[in-house]
Amino acid sequence: MAHHVATPARLEAFSDGVIAVIITIMVLELKVPHQDGLEGLLSVLPTLCLYLISFAFVGIYWINHHQLVHRTEEVDQLVLYANLAFLFCLSLLPFFTSYVLDKKMDSFSVALYITSMVVTGFSFLSLRLAISRRLRHAGRLEAEDKAVERKNWLSLFVYLIAIPIAFQHPHISLGLTAFVTIIWITPTAGIKRHEEYPPRDLS
Amino acid sequence: MAHHVATPARLEAFSDGVIAVIITIMVLELKVPHQDGLEGLLSVLPTLCLYLISFAFVGIYWINHHQLVHRTEEVDQLVLYANLAFLFCLSLLPFFTSYVLDKKMDSFSVALYITSMVVTGFSFLSLRLAISRRLRHAGRLEAEDKAVERKNWLSLFVYLIAIPIAFQHPHISLGLTAFVTIIWITPTAGIKRHEEYPPRDLS
Amino acid sequence: MAHHVATPARLEAFSDGVIAVIITIMVLELKVPHQDGLEGLLSVLPTLCLYLISFAFVGIYWINHHQLVHRTEEVDQLVLYANLAFLFCLSLLPFFTSYVLDKKMDSFSVALYITSMVVTGFSFLSLRLAISRRLRHAGRLEAEDKAVERKNWLSLFVYLIAIPIAFQHPHISLGLTAFVTIIWITPTAGIKRHEEYPPRDLS
Amino acid sequence: MAHHVATPARLEAFSDGVIAVIITIMVLELKVPHQDGLEGLLSVLPTLCLYLISFAFVGIYWINHHQLVHRTEEVDQLVLYANLAFLFCLSLLPFFTSYVLDKKMDSFSVALYITSMVVTGFSFLSLRLAISRRLRHAGRLEAEDKAVERKNWLSLFVYLIAIPIAFQHPHISLGLTAFVTIIWITPTAGIKRHEEYPPRDLS
Repeated sequence: MAHHVATPARLEAFSDGVIAVIITIMVLELKVPHQDGLEGLLSVLPTLCLYLISFAFVGIYWINHHQLVHRTEEVDQLVLYANLAFLFCLSLLPFFTSYVLDKKMDSFSVALYITSMVVTGFSFLSLRLAISRRLRHAGRLEAEDKAVERKNWLSLFVYLIAIPIAFQHPHISLGLTAFVTIIWITPTAGIKRHEEYPPRDLS
Repeated sequence: MAHHVATPARLEAFSDGVIAVIITIMVLELKVPHQDGLEGLLSVLPTLCLYLISFAFVGIYWINHHQLVHRTEEVDQLVLYANLAFLFCLSLLPFFTSYVLDKKMDSFSVALYITSMVVTGFSFLSLRLAISRRLRHAGRLEAEDKAVERKNWLSLFVYLIAIPIAFQHPHISLGLTAFVTIIWITPTAGIKRHEEYPPRDLS
Repeated sequence: MAHHVATPARLEAFSDGVIAVIITIMVLELKVPHQDGLEGLLSVLPTLCLYLISFAFVGIYWINHHQLVHRTEEVDQLVLYANLAFLFCLSLLPFFTSYVLDKKMDSFSVALYITSMVVTGFSFLSLRLAISRRLRHAGRLEAEDKAVERKNWLSLFVYLIAIPIAFQHPHISLGLTAFVTIIWITPTAGIKRHEEYPPRDLS
Repeated sequence: MAHHVATPARLEAFSDGVIAVIITIMVLELKVPHQDGLEGLLSVLPTLCLYLISFAFVGIYWINHHQLVHRTEEVDQLVLYANLAFLFCLSLLPFFTSYVLDKKMDSFSVALYITSMVVTGFSFLSLRLAISRRLRHAGRLEAEDKAVERKNWLSLFVYLIAIPIAFQHPHISLGLTAFVTIIWITPTAGIKRHEEYPPRDLS
């Protein structure tokens, strides 16, 4: 009996399941407004926008998560629990999203929302470090892995700055957060130049 | 490290997860009526019907989605985000379904419902275009792909006509929408003649 | 471009996702009672029992579904839509379960519950017939397939009898239903003798 | 037609789906507090903590479940139903978690919570025994399997002791429960010494 914990395939499958549920149950928070016509639609518009942002946020994490897990061929206890911790943080996003909304984007709730994003970002970095540790042992850690890691640290730094700003200027704070998220749309953006149709030596 | 984004397999797995949740959580909207007996059942009947329609709608999209994604062997950033955008639009369907229901199918809510269908149809077309782009590069785009694309454009056109009609005749508008949906029950209907037991050269 | 619709693998994956959500969201119906202590627990006990029954019901369907889909190597449009229809019927089970509960098991709600089971049973039989049709074409339909089909027809017949009984004796009716369900715990029970460790020529 | 019931792969996929839903829908129990600012956050803190504990609990079970199912190459009826029973017990965890919370951790609700953990632990042991039975037949049962089985029995014993204690000292009881859970973070902890990078002869 080898010291088997889990295959990357099952880690991916389980993470996909959890992320699919997280991304979809947020829609349960949308409530049909009491007012009729355009007025009613306008009253749910902020909620719809926030749902869009949260969906994008989770979607971007899903893409980066795949990109990351794909690098490893083995999964140990540390990776497994770092992954669970990351999924836990991500699963709180729908809650903090409705928190901000219920409190009509007051400073405290925005600060809380951004704090939850910092914690999620940190848990993702932990997962990255746990996987890098395995790659280093297998002698497969590359310069680019380290560059993405640095990008991860930098993002966390900007998130941290956004927390105190939230108490004075919640909207600037949300803007900064959105900016950091956008950077991760392309996981390797700012790290190497984009090749349109790269050779597929790894699949 | 190749410029890997995601395998079609994982794209499918994630999309399946999201669609499975979307199609199922709609049932949570069904509420047991207060009245007893047949009266109570009759009062939930419209909701049940709408649930059936939405279920069919999502189911048909699932089939067409599989048919489409199955064509490609590679997935790039564009395809990935077009897919996320499509899933986002689809995930709003349960919300707009209960919207129509709560507003007792008034003109505005029907127009809104159909608009959401137009947007979903457009996001699906975008996904198709993103995948066609890859196929064209790989030299694998076939005449039939283009025919399905034209069918997609045509459907969108009928949907767009249905929006203004909703303000005068909500039921005709819903009928048009249902008609377009039915066309997609067989993804290739109206494009090539049906072969009962075709040879399986691709699986 | 072959007339591809879907692989059995993806049909299974999607069905598993939907069934996993159906079986789990039922738990959201469980509400913490107002009373403290043992009294509170006793007040939720009927709900817990019904949840157990519904869970078992869906679980047994999952096993039989796998057993059935496993038989086929190809999936056509008919199988795909029969499968969607089956999933639709199954997804209504949580709703009709809470219906029975809210109405405190009155005759009408029990009859409704059993009717939904009949419809689900019928949709499952349709799926079986659609798959048998493919097997017949491929020359792979066996005597045992036909025996299971007969068992399916018989179950439907008992269910149908249970509906009118529900109006007079709801509990006998539920008992009959439970009895039919138990028969399907072992998909091939009553069809061939049980072999403890059969050779695995198919996996 | 072999006496096929299910492949371990599909058993895993279905279990993963159910566990992913269980672990995620718990977040729907989190309600945004009425109070603003820090006061509001503090009022939801106990709920957040309990959510964390339940998430960890389900996560640990997921890891141990994978470790267990991975051992087997064949799945029979007994394993299948033991697995369904285990998933049923696990699916009740979100309910009993909110039970404890609603009752503000009174003795009865804590005893109930721990009882549900005992029952879940027992169902997991049953699954282990069902799989061991198969392994024994295949001549693949190893000394370590038996050691983990003993660890499982011991955990159940400590859980059982925790139930009566809950009536006098709910917190000590919860502490004992937490302690047992922690032991299972590493499935083979206390059984063989930890090898950092073991050879992977099984994958």
